Amino acid sequence: MHERAADTRRAVLQAAAHLFFEQGYAATSIADISELSARTSGAIYFHYAGKEQLARAVVEAHFAAWPALIARHENVGAPALERLVRLSYAVARAFRDDVFVRAGARLWAERRSINVEMPPPFLDWIATVEHLLDEARAEGTLAAGAEPVRDATTLVSAFFGLHTLSDALDERRLIEDRLTAFWHLMLPALQGAPAPAALLDRVREDTASLPR
Amino acid sequence: MHERAADTRRAVLQAAAHLFFEQGYAATSIADISELSARTSGAIYFHYAGKEQLARAVVEAHFAAWPALIARHENVGAPALERLVRLSYAVARAFRDDVFVRAGARLWAERRSINVEMPPPFLDWIATVEHLLDEARAEGTLAAGAEPVRDATTLVSAFFGLHTLSDALDERRLIEDRLTAFWHLMLPALQGAPAPAALLDRVREDTASLPR
Repeated sequence: MHERAADTRRAVLQAAAHLFFEQGYAATSIADISELSARTSGAIYFHYAGKEQLARAVVEAHFAAWPALIARHENVGAPALERLVRLSYAVARAFRDDVFVRAGARLWAERRSINVEMPPPFLDWIATVEHLLDEARAEGTLAAGAEPVRDATTLVSAFFGLHTLSDALDERRLIEDRLTAFWHLMLPALQGAPAPAALLDRVREDTASLPR
Repeated sequence: MHERAADTRRAVLQAAAHLFFEQGYAATSIADISELSARTSGAIYFHYAGKEQLARAVVEAHFAAWPALIARHENVGAPALERLVRLSYAVARAFRDDVFVRAGARLWAERRSINVEMPPPFLDWIATVEHLLDEARAEGTLAAGAEPVRDATTLVSAFFGLHTLSDALDERRLIEDRLTAFWHLMLPALQGAPAPAALLDRVREDTASLPR
């Protein structure tokens, strides 16, 4: 693709993500996207057949954000539960700061009103968490009563609910504090020793300065 | 109100809740509600000024479902944590089986596209859970590391997320099993003794046969 075409594509997608997030799918028109991206609607239609295709591209950009983030946390030299907690802060920050992630989340919430197929976002996350819990078991750090398959699903749904609540009550500004509270409730069932609080203090401070 | 008018009001509201839940707010028309309720649109407009007012009435019916349910569980003769767990099963069943609760939940998810003010559903629930955790502390059954204010918020958001996940993955058919898994993860941080598993087995069996 010529550089200029790539620029246009990127600008249009960015504007679409911004508007889908701010005002939702139904209220966003190609004319709005044209205005915000400073591209003609002709240029937009050259790259995307219509609003549905733009929504699909935003959702794809949302899903494309995760594999690199997950790989970075899977390969860090730390116990598996600590890597799980670190990953959760990184994901929470992406949901607060990344326009594609935020727009993808809103489009998913509105999925029933949009004619675009969207896979449920839970399954890949459950597999990722289950894998980390399995590793913790292999390391001998997972509490005896924990069950990776069962607990991975609960953790992912609880994490999702935390974002919905933070979105509704404080526009995700308090998501990191809420996540710390979340782990205070979750870790006792997952980790015997060392004490969960110590892990939490260390991880939250460390990861704040890491690249996402 | 005359009995016939009350009947009409109820039938219209029931039909609106059914359709808002099944197909969402935007896709539901007064004509659809007229057809399903077997009432003329004139009769509908006599009771409700329009679709927005119907949505508001459905949301109010959703919120009206809770105080009696909560009171019933607050006044049962059982330890506070057990009452909390019992209440959670009752609420989960309402979200699975009650059309007003289900419709209210969907309307809330679509709130940004609907011109009806809807309070966030979390705050009253957080207060209810906090109250039960305070009682558990007063009874001496709350774990030392638990903090009612902090943990009530996490519990409510996690419970909400559980419903979103169950809704997306199994249309809430598995909500009771998922809720049992949820408590396996949550109770260790809340309850020292007796062992959480024993409480769960007892409560889930008991409440299945209770009226909601």
